[in-house]
Order: sequence, then C-alpha cells, then structure tokens
Amino acid sequence: MLPFARVTILGLGLIGSSIARGVLQAMPTVRLTGYDADPAVRATADRLELCHDIADTAGSAVIDADLVILCVPVGAMAAVAAEFAADLPAEAIVSDVGSSKTEVARVLAEALPGATVIPAHPVAGTERSGPEAGFATLFNHRWCIVTPPEGADPAAVERIADFWRRLGAQIEFMAPDHHDRVLAITSHLPHLIAYTIVGTASDLEEVTQSEVIKYSAGGFRDFTRIAASDPTMWRDVFLTNREAVLDMLQRFSEDLSALQRAIRWGKGDELFDLFTRTRAVRRSIVEQGQDDDAADFGRAHD
Amino acid sequence: MLPFARVTILGLGLIGSSIARGVLQAMPTVRLTGYDADPAVRATADRLELCHDIADTAGSAVIDADLVILCVPVGAMAAVAAEFAADLPAEAIVSDVGSSKTEVARVLAEALPGATVIPAHPVAGTERSGPEAGFATLFNHRWCIVTPPEGADPAAVERIADFWRRLGAQIEFMAPDHHDRVLAITSHLPHLIAYTIVGTASDLEEVTQSEVIKYSAGGFRDFTRIAASDPTMWRDVFLTNREAVLDMLQRFSEDLSALQRAIRWGKGDELFDLFTRTRAVRRSIVEQGQDDDAADFGRAHD
Repeated sequence: MLPFARVTILGLGLIGSSIARGVLQAMPTVRLTGYDADPAVRATADRLELCHDIADTAGSAVIDADLVILCVPVGAMAAVAAEFAADLPAEAIVSDVGSSKTEVARVLAEALPGATVIPAHPVAGTERSGPEAGFATLFNHRWCIVTPPEGADPAAVERIADFWRRLGAQIEFMAPDHHDRVLAITSHLPHLIAYTIVGTASDLEEVTQSEVIKYSAGGFRDFTRIAASDPTMWRDVFLTNREAVLDMLQRFSEDLSALQRAIRWGKGDELFDLFTRTRAVRRSIVEQGQDDDAADFGRAHD
Repeated sequence: MLPFARVTILGLGLIGSSIARGVLQAMPTVRLTGYDADPAVRATADRLELCHDIADTAGSAVIDADLVILCVPVGAMAAVAAEFAADLPAEAIVSDVGSSKTEVARVLAEALPGATVIPAHPVAGTERSGPEAGFATLFNHRWCIVTPPEGADPAAVERIADFWRRLGAQIEFMAPDHHDRVLAITSHLPHLIAYTIVGTASDLEEVTQSEVIKYSAGGFRDFTRIAASDPTMWRDVFLTNREAVLDMLQRFSEDLSALQRAIRWGKGDELFDLFTRTRAVRRSIVEQGQDDDAADFGRAHD
C-alpha cells in the first residue's frame, strides 16, 4: 500500500520537480498537485506535465493533500507555510527537503500549530536549478535524512520514510541539531569554500579571468561546479545553519593555517602524511557507492 | 615531418605512461624508450608494452634520444637529471611535465649545463597514479604551457610545441614565474584546500568518519577526488612553488574571513552577490570546452 494518495509539492525547482518525476514513475496512482510562486515555473511545470494539477495558490494546492512537501529555499519556508496554513487538512503530514533542519523545524512548527510536521533532507542534487533540471533518478542510492521532532507519531515518520524509499533513497534518522552539524561539514562548508575560491580567482589582477578559465583543468574547474549552485538556496542555508557552519569553518581555518606553516617552513613530511591520509577517504566513498569509480569523474577525454 | 625520432620518457606514472600511449598512437614511427626508478613500474610498463624499450638506468635510457621528457615529481628532477647528465647526447632536447616551472628550470639548468632545456607543463591529469592509470587521450583539448628560458632556440621551442600538439594539446607560452602564479590559483590552491577539508572532516570527534562518507554527496565527495591525487607529486609542488601558493592562500583566507563575517552578521546580500557572480565562471569554463556540460559531472544516477 502506498504511504500517501494525494501529494502536493510546493516549489518546483530541481528537487521539487525531481520528486514529481519520481512519484509519477514509482507511485503512478498518486494524485500529484504542484505549486510554485513563480508563474513562469508553473507554466513550465504544466508544459512538462510534472503534476496532474498545477495550482495557482499554495492554499488551493494543499486543500485535499495527505502529504505536503515544501521544496523551497529554507528562508522561504515560513512564508509559504503561512500561506497555506488555513487550508491544510487536519490529517495531512507536512514535510520538506531543506538543507538545515533545526531552523526549518522551528519555523514550520510556529507557522503550522497542531500540524504533523516531519522534516526530511534528501542529500542529493546537482548544480542546476529549475523545473527542467530535475530527473526521477536523482535520489537513487542517496541518503534521505529524516529528522522527526520529539514525540512525533511513529506511523507518520514511517510513512515519510516509506515515501523516500520508493523514490530510491536510503533512510537515516537524526536529531535536527546533529543533522545540521553533519551537513555543515559534508555539504555547507564545501560549498562555502568553493564559492570563496571561485571569487578569489575572479578578483586577481595579474592573472586574468581568461587564464583562470583556460587552465581550470588543473583542479579549479571542480570547484566551479559546486559554486554554480543556486544562490538563493545557499544564502539561506548559511543564514539558517550559522553556528554549525562557523564552527566547522573555524576548524578548517586552523587546519589550513597549519598547512600554510608547513609549506612556509618546508615541512614536506607533514604534507605527505596528510596527502596520504586523505586518499583513503576517497576510496571509502567509492566503495560505499557514494561516488562513481571512474577516474576524473568519468569526464570525456576525446 | 615528426619533431622527434627517438623519444625517452623518464618516469612512467600517470603522465609519463599517457605520453607513451599518445606517442604510440599519434607518432607511431617514433622509437620510444622508457625508464622508471621503480623496478615494479618498469615491469608493468614492459607488460603493457608502453615503450619499445624499457631501460634499466636513466643513463642508458637517454643515450640515443633526441627528446628526453622528465615525468617525475618535481622534487626528483635534479637527482634524475644528474643520473643521466653524462649520457645525454649533445643535440638532445630535454623537457619535463612538472607543475611548478621556476624551480624546475633552475635545477635542470644546473644539473645539465650546456644542454637545451625547454620546460613544459601539460595542464591535465586525473586523481589516479601509476603506469596503468594513463591513457592516450589525456591531453586532448587541454592546454600545454611551454616556458622556454630566455634566449632559447626558437626551433627547439617549436619542436616541443609541435610534439604536444600531436598529443592533442593546445599550446601557450609563458614566463616561468607567471606560469607559477597562474597555476597557484588554478591548480595548487584548489588541491591544498581539498586536502585540508578532507583532513578536517576526518578529524571531527562528534561527526563520525562513517557519517562523512555516507552524506558526502552533499558536496564533500567532489573534494575527495582531488584529495586522492598523488601525495609525492603534490608535496613537491607545494615545496617548489611556495611563494606563489602562500600568496594565493593569503588572498583566499582574506576572502573566506569576509564570508565568515557575512554569515556571522547575517548579511545575506553579500552572500547572494558572490554566489551569483561565481555561477558565470562555471558557464565560461563549459563554453570554452574546459569541462563537460553534463550536470553533476555526468555522474550516473541509476
């Protein structure tokens, strides 16, 4: 039996449109409704037939849903929830896909008093944005972290987990604050660093932008992929997971200073030891199916 | 007419073995000789038929060469050059593939007085090492930067350029110190940062190694590819391009501090502005053929 019969997706960008495509494939009898604040996105979603209905307002989108998933930037969650709060059916479960969970849980609980809110975070994505960037297999073999509030109904939690498993994801449960610290290191800090170095490279006077681009295959281009991610989404992530990101950043900066010192003083052994240790981490990621085994990300070379 | 008739490759790792494969395909009449200090690598090269001859010493490898390319870590260049100096034919051209050029030019000129040395750097590679990791198309559409010393014979420079064009590369000429600054930002700093963050993530107490690996698809896994690169090669790069790397690192650290401050004080506009600017850099890299257009590096999702 399917965990939900009438699913509403609010926000039809990369993640929302991927969920829509996944539901149409994996749960074809589900009645799927979509909404996006941007009329152009609604029109595209309509043209792509991402949902059975595209609603004109958040309220009309949720009116008969048994699952409502918010797929909007975390900074927009409160406003969207307020928009549909009055129309939310009492028995509906509300979830989301936001990358920071403590703050999202707080604002959703506040905007939807009495509602069943089970936040979740599928750790998957690409650097593309918008309804055309999504695809049904985005969540295959990826982890979806479910962060139920204390005292959450176990049956509701299990229905959310079931939903994500059907989209191909593996499920893990976590407390929201632990989620936020784990993601600060595995996702938020990497994005922050990538954005920073691409900015640094753009601002050099003596090395031209054209040189940076021409010789980017030396490593830099890897960072530009992540630094091409959605600006609104990422601004909101940093603003809503501030403490954990600043803490991880502090640790990173200390480690970077240690390497800086090792380079300045010619301590080759320290460099070599670290560079050997990091190789093993890559191996584990590939072995555990969290990245492809192909060299150079399988880039074409001909 | 081919630029060289008898090519010797010293060092048969990823780059050396890729050159060997490229020469066999693109310049099949060239007589190819290889040497590696590691007997196991020599045996593998023999088995893979990477060269027509695998020599037992660097000296015997170069004895009738008209091109000798050093494909060893930059810290090993001086010692290898000293090994074959006495056997180098007077008319041979010596080149290399090192990632830092000022220091390499200096040590090769010192170790090979009177020889024609035309250093070069193909900006290409993968995170793999060793003779089995190479492939003939590695240099296709990539740039090879040639850094001739002042007063170099233009005919010798052109022969080196011709050689690399036949392996698929595009040629750029640069002064060694400019090369070292360009590569410090497009290659060396990205590697340093990737090594650092993978180290930082490995050392956390409250987030386990297993969690870091499981949720690495949030961005972290991208960094682990670069941080799996050859430890000896990269140790030597940082030790031989110290000033430029430390300067770029200083700029990066300043920019990172500015972002840290923006996050701490909730300055969303500053974050949004940077994140929008960096998106354009990615677009240029793809447009100029320096990376594939596929989302998420074209990773498999099924």
